[in-house]
Amino acid sequence: MKGELRYEGKAKKVYATDKPGEYIVEYKDDATAFNAQKRGTVADKGVVNNAITSVLYPRLEAAGVPTHFLAQLSEREQLVKAVEIVPVEVVVRNVAAGSFSKRLGLSEGVLLSQPVVEYYYKSDVLGDPLINTDTAVTMGWATEEDLAVIRTLALRVNAFLTPFFAARGVRLIDFKLEFGKTPDGEIVLADEISPDTCRFWDAQSGEKLDKDRFRRDLGGVEDAYQEMLRRVISEADPTSTPLSR
Amino acid sequence: MKGELRYEGKAKKVYATDKPGEYIVEYKDDATAFNAQKRGTVADKGVVNNAITSVLYPRLEAAGVPTHFLAQLSEREQLVKAVEIVPVEVVVRNVAAGSFSKRLGLSEGVLLSQPVVEYYYKSDVLGDPLINTDTAVTMGWATEEDLAVIRTLALRVNAFLTPFFAARGVRLIDFKLEFGKTPDGEIVLADEISPDTCRFWDAQSGEKLDKDRFRRDLGGVEDAYQEMLRRVISEADPTSTPLSR
Repeated sequence: MKGELRYEGKAKKVYATDKPGEYIVEYKDDATAFNAQKRGTVADKGVVNNAITSVLYPRLEAAGVPTHFLAQLSEREQLVKAVEIVPVEVVVRNVAAGSFSKRLGLSEGVLLSQPVVEYYYKSDVLGDPLINTDTAVTMGWATEEDLAVIRTLALRVNAFLTPFFAARGVRLIDFKLEFGKTPDGEIVLADEISPDTCRFWDAQSGEKLDKDRFRRDLGGVEDAYQEMLRRVISEADPTSTPLSR
Repeated sequence: MKGELRYEGKAKKVYATDKPGEYIVEYKDDATAFNAQKRGTVADKGVVNNAITSVLYPRLEAAGVPTHFLAQLSEREQLVKAVEIVPVEVVVRNVAAGSFSKRLGLSEGVLLSQPVVEYYYKSDVLGDPLINTDTAVTMGWATEEDLAVIRTLALRVNAFLTPFFAARGVRLIDFKLEFGKTPDGEIVLADEISPDTCRFWDAQSGEKLDKDRFRRDLGGVEDAYQEMLRRVISEADPTSTPLSR
């Protein structure tokens, strides 16, 4: 039973339920980019992102990553644990792209010799600035211990997702995670994992199958999201070449 | 004996000597700010910065921080160990100011609950972007072990300098360090510590006694540098109130 609206983000709404420890998340089709300077909608994006997240989160749980996910309720709705979101966005990068490429003068597509974990302060007003552990701790956004757990879990997510997508012909370039804290202090993966929050490149053609199609006006946004959903729900192709990270 | 010019930076020249393990550093009066978009000269800045660094580095050595410093040779010259500079600039912050304030939406002067150590990639072309440990390691700019040593030394420098300046009526707001590696692999403090590389605020008046006077066109640049030299070479004032960080 959907209660009061508790939070509305750029792509999701969060509602109370009749249980204090559970929320309902509703996925919207609204799309924003460049700190909401660019706005639009992507037809059925909410359906796709809910479906992909609902496939991935139980698998991540099984791979040792505690998550907020409880159940998919409908095409656009999920039941999740009520958590307090840690205001530190976590980006894991396997290949240089986007702001990382720009900031460091690297061509998009340069394979990184090991995954890079970055922290950004979740603040629309400030444009999600890059921060480090010291800053997060000093500002009271997370403790040193929380960040150590978050880093371990983020790398575990990467270790699970990279071969998962490789087996479906997709290179996982980078992705953003958010974590939450349960009332009893457990750090769990929250938010979503979808073409909104990951860079997915087709392993053969290099074609972008993610939100960069929207950000960069590449066209075929809806098709790319649908294609990613198809690949996620497909069985892994046993003949596909295992891809290096 | 000054040999071939090996390197010319914005504020210093580095010359070979007749010993392969030793360089001569010559301090210039040239001043640049905002990634060299603003240029000027500050009369006798080179003399002041050489003098301040030549007082501080032996004291830092005594406080357990290995440095490249060997001797002051003249008003503008120092003899230093030949090191390979680690291309990671290290910023230690005690109080929010400058780019940190701007990035995080903090007023200048907000005391940080603990020192923040930040890493920036030393690249004029890229404007010295903020990076983290993962990025430095992945890009091959420093090893994890090097960065652990660098962090420890940077905090040791802060622990020495903060009371040193407090005893001379100066708040140490933040500062930038550079480290080098000797041929036998030791990480040592290199570069300089001066009003070019630190934010110094008068403890009573809050007046800026550093390069921000040049950056922000506050006037009295030369006087501020001379005042900092006077304070550094003065004995600590035993009557001055010990300042909290």
